[in-house]
Amino acid sequence: MTWKEKLHEVIYEADTKAGKLFDVILLIVIIISLVLVMLDSVDYLYEAYHDWFVIAEWVITIFFTIEYALRIISIKKPSKYIFSFYGIIDFLSTIPLYISLVFAGSGALLTLRALRLLRVFRVLKLAKFTGAGAKISVAINNSLPKILTFLYSVIIVSFIAGAIMYMVEGPEHGFTSIPRSIYWTIVTLTTVGYGDIHPVTPIGQFVASIIMMMGYGVIAVPTGIVSAEMVKEERLHNNTQDCFNCGENKHQNHAEYCHACGYSLNKKKDKKKKTK
Amino acid sequence: MTWKEKLHEVIYEADTKAGKLFDVILLIVIIISLVLVMLDSVDYLYEAYHDWFVIAEWVITIFFTIEYALRIISIKKPSKYIFSFYGIIDFLSTIPLYISLVFAGSGALLTLRALRLLRVFRVLKLAKFTGAGAKISVAINNSLPKILTFLYSVIIVSFIAGAIMYMVEGPEHGFTSIPRSIYWTIVTLTTVGYGDIHPVTPIGQFVASIIMMMGYGVIAVPTGIVSAEMVKEERLHNNTQDCFNCGENKHQNHAEYCHACGYSLNKKKDKKKKTK
Amino acid sequence: MTWKEKLHEVIYEADTKAGKLFDVILLIVIIISLVLVMLDSVDYLYEAYHDWFVIAEWVITIFFTIEYALRIISIKKPSKYIFSFYGIIDFLSTIPLYISLVFAGSGALLTLRALRLLRVFRVLKLAKFTGAGAKISVAINNSLPKILTFLYSVIIVSFIAGAIMYMVEGPEHGFTSIPRSIYWTIVTLTTVGYGDIHPVTPIGQFVASIIMMMGYGVIAVPTGIVSAEMVKEERLHNNTQDCFNCGENKHQNHAEYCHACGYSLNKKKDKKKKTK
Amino acid sequence: MTWKEKLHEVIYEADTKAGKLFDVILLIVIIISLVLVMLDSVDYLYEAYHDWFVIAEWVITIFFTIEYALRIISIKKPSKYIFSFYGIIDFLSTIPLYISLVFAGSGALLTLRALRLLRVFRVLKLAKFTGAGAKISVAINNSLPKILTFLYSVIIVSFIAGAIMYMVEGPEHGFTSIPRSIYWTIVTLTTVGYGDIHPVTPIGQFVASIIMMMGYGVIAVPTGIVSAEMVKEERLHNNTQDCFNCGENKHQNHAEYCHACGYSLNKKKDKKKKTK
Repeated sequence: MTWKEKLHEVIYEADTKAGKLFDVILLIVIIISLVLVMLDSVDYLYEAYHDWFVIAEWVITIFFTIEYALRIISIKKPSKYIFSFYGIIDFLSTIPLYISLVFAGSGALLTLRALRLLRVFRVLKLAKFTGAGAKISVAINNSLPKILTFLYSVIIVSFIAGAIMYMVEGPEHGFTSIPRSIYWTIVTLTTVGYGDIHPVTPIGQFVASIIMMMGYGVIAVPTGIVSAEMVKEERLHNNTQDCFNCGENKHQNHAEYCHACGYSLNKKKDKKKKTK
Repeated sequence: MTWKEKLHEVIYEADTKAGKLFDVILLIVIIISLVLVMLDSVDYLYEAYHDWFVIAEWVITIFFTIEYALRIISIKKPSKYIFSFYGIIDFLSTIPLYISLVFAGSGALLTLRALRLLRVFRVLKLAKFTGAGAKISVAINNSLPKILTFLYSVIIVSFIAGAIMYMVEGPEHGFTSIPRSIYWTIVTLTTVGYGDIHPVTPIGQFVASIIMMMGYGVIAVPTGIVSAEMVKEERLHNNTQDCFNCGENKHQNHAEYCHACGYSLNKKKDKKKKTK
Repeated sequence: MTWKEKLHEVIYEADTKAGKLFDVILLIVIIISLVLVMLDSVDYLYEAYHDWFVIAEWVITIFFTIEYALRIISIKKPSKYIFSFYGIIDFLSTIPLYISLVFAGSGALLTLRALRLLRVFRVLKLAKFTGAGAKISVAINNSLPKILTFLYSVIIVSFIAGAIMYMVEGPEHGFTSIPRSIYWTIVTLTTVGYGDIHPVTPIGQFVASIIMMMGYGVIAVPTGIVSAEMVKEERLHNNTQDCFNCGENKHQNHAEYCHACGYSLNKKKDKKKKTK
Repeated sequence: MTWKEKLHEVIYEADTKAGKLFDVILLIVIIISLVLVMLDSVDYLYEAYHDWFVIAEWVITIFFTIEYALRIISIKKPSKYIFSFYGIIDFLSTIPLYISLVFAGSGALLTLRALRLLRVFRVLKLAKFTGAGAKISVAINNSLPKILTFLYSVIIVSFIAGAIMYMVEGPEHGFTSIPRSIYWTIVTLTTVGYGDIHPVTPIGQFVASIIMMMGYGVIAVPTGIVSAEMVKEERLHNNTQDCFNCGENKHQNHAEYCHACGYSLNKKKDKKKKTK
């Protein structure tokens, strides 16, 4: 194994001890960097400790630069990494500080560092998902087409309800335009209800009440979809005990005998062990 | 096939290539028209680009006028279309601009154009529903009577709770009338909570807390209803046991005989195994 | 049948045509009366039409007085009716106008008329519940002990969270007392979120975020409880088709043959019909 | 049985009549003490009745001191109690008043009395849980890993969405720092929606709408998780098939053999039928 291959194993994989350690360090640096970006955005911390934040930011940027260089070196086709999703994220979340050196007044670019958040996902992706996470993502993936179809209908309803409220309440009560009315409808249908815009006229309040009741009945739909998926998931994947005798495969977790034919489920296990 | 029949096929159906194309174009024009109506309602866009919006609106109105005329021509009984739900929607969403020409100051009528949104549904109706959409609508349809019964009870509770809050808080704290108190109750029970009206006195806040707790337990009901329907739907339609005899495919998981014709479902399985 | 028995049948029962008619009329009068009470509480309607409302109120009060008298006459033991729940409701919702005649300035008592709302329940009770309503109420009744146990835990959590927020934010940010903080916690946990009180300090916002996340996970519990009940309800009561041959009783609604033994489910039905 | 053992039985256990009585009295004193702490925090009650509250507080503190002493006396290893979770809670919730005697201006410590709330849990723990409570806690415990995994994803999404909104809206519209933006995101995703911070620019409102729609679909996930657990719980524990051989009672609905010992469940049924 060449040093390039070794480096690749450490940086891109998480099977070896060194690879896991690298991931953990990377995760910690990302989180520290994010905390710094967060704290730097707080006014009074900015005034008191800005210089320290700048120094820490430079240390982290240099760390990320080295990591970026190593990633390019340790892969066969660097172009494949550079133009991949995470390659672009890595580049964009490293570069801002350098640009701010060259061009004064490009401080706005520094917010690009928030993109480092997305890097957390890569580390998580490498780590083995727990059973819980896997089950959830299966259920969500299965429900996705249904939820999207549903959200699409909600958007159409939002348009119509928004247009109605714009006509009923009008600009003088905060519904200054149809897009703004649609924004209000979404705020209402999702039961968020900021209250920055709210109906004032009795008719508007009546229409709003109907929209709310509708949203109340409707919020049940995505919930029902995911619930059904989760229930199904539970029922189907609950365990892998197949009966050796009759093939029945929906046994409870602690079952020791097949509930369909009475054959011992353990015999099979014993057999498996023996064949190993 | 006469040209009228051909036209009918293109405009009213979505089976042929031309028919699908027509639907897609119509959908795009409707969406553009809706975006224009939306943008035109934004103050500063109105001032800057109003003239362009008017021109675009005229182009679209003429397009819809031609479409409306073609729909009347290409159907056997025009009256059947004209007085149908979508016929009226088409008419009302095309006419406003013409009226605004004749009568000055009828600008309010222009908001009628928002009715074009409803036209989207027709196009969607023609398109083949995906399995996801069909399943959702079956589950919603099945739950509808239960959800309506439930909403009816919620409305009665809203009346009582509204009347109580009107007595407890009174007009000086925003609960100026019983209808307004009922509006507040609905805003609260549905957990929207704008905050435009809110209890101020300790007793009012105590009663409101009880109403909220109630709403909290109660929001579970429509969700439970839809969940149960979705679970049932999943259970019935997710089985791969097709009857060899009659083709019925909605069998329960542990069924051994087809519930539609009484034919053994296992025979087929045996056959499959043999052919393997 | 004496005229008293006849009257009893009309007023107290809903089996006969006259009984149903009486219920419908009563329901309509109650609703009109409620609408009047509502409208009378609106300021500008009060000023414009108050005299008309008073006249209408008198007509309705006299109608209810007669009904009350008839109810007493047509029952064997009047005391049983008078001191029953609905007897007291009937009395309290009829009397206010008479009292306001005797004592000037007892207008507050008029809000007692809102109690008429409760009378709607009696009429509904007499009417035959649809299957939907019955299923819902069974599911809710079954879930009630669980939901109450759950709400009890929520109340304890609200106390602790309220006390913490009172310490963290303090009176200067709206959390003027522990009861008020508890009110805020309930507003937050139930996701109503009026915004009349809200955390201002960073620590307060952090604690509030945790409370919200907790509430987010926790709102799932009553929903899960009711869902499970509804699913069970669906599974158990979905239909009454028992197989005549093998006794299997979990058939789908449209099944014509038993899925366990293949026996025709209709034969049994035919038999039933014959025995009738 | 020595008097120490007797005392131990009364104070630490709830099996005997005296033990139950002690628990009930303790619960009542705790609740009274909590109500007093709550009322004392209300401004005008403080001014009017503060002296009475102080006296009552002293009575309760002495009661708790005696209880604390008895708990130490009646246990074999006092250190085990003193440094246990409830031992520390008991100490901290008893001591504040004594400290406030010694040090003037340590009134802030009095809020520590709110810790007495935690003592309620001990009493509840001793009492036998109803079936409802047990079922809920099993379902919640089972769902916990999934809900935590889910909440973890929500927190990451909150970070990203918060950073985006900070860039889009900026400090001039209330999004003064990234932590504050994250607070706003959590308020929005959980559908609480105070409205203390809310998007003002059209782009911000558009992004917020997407976040809300996402939260709308996403709130279904914890609900689905708990629902699936509750459904499973219902399915497993609601069956009346008890094994004749080993007594196992958590069989699936269609099981024909006991999954714990392999004994036929039908034999028992046959027997039952015969004895009938």
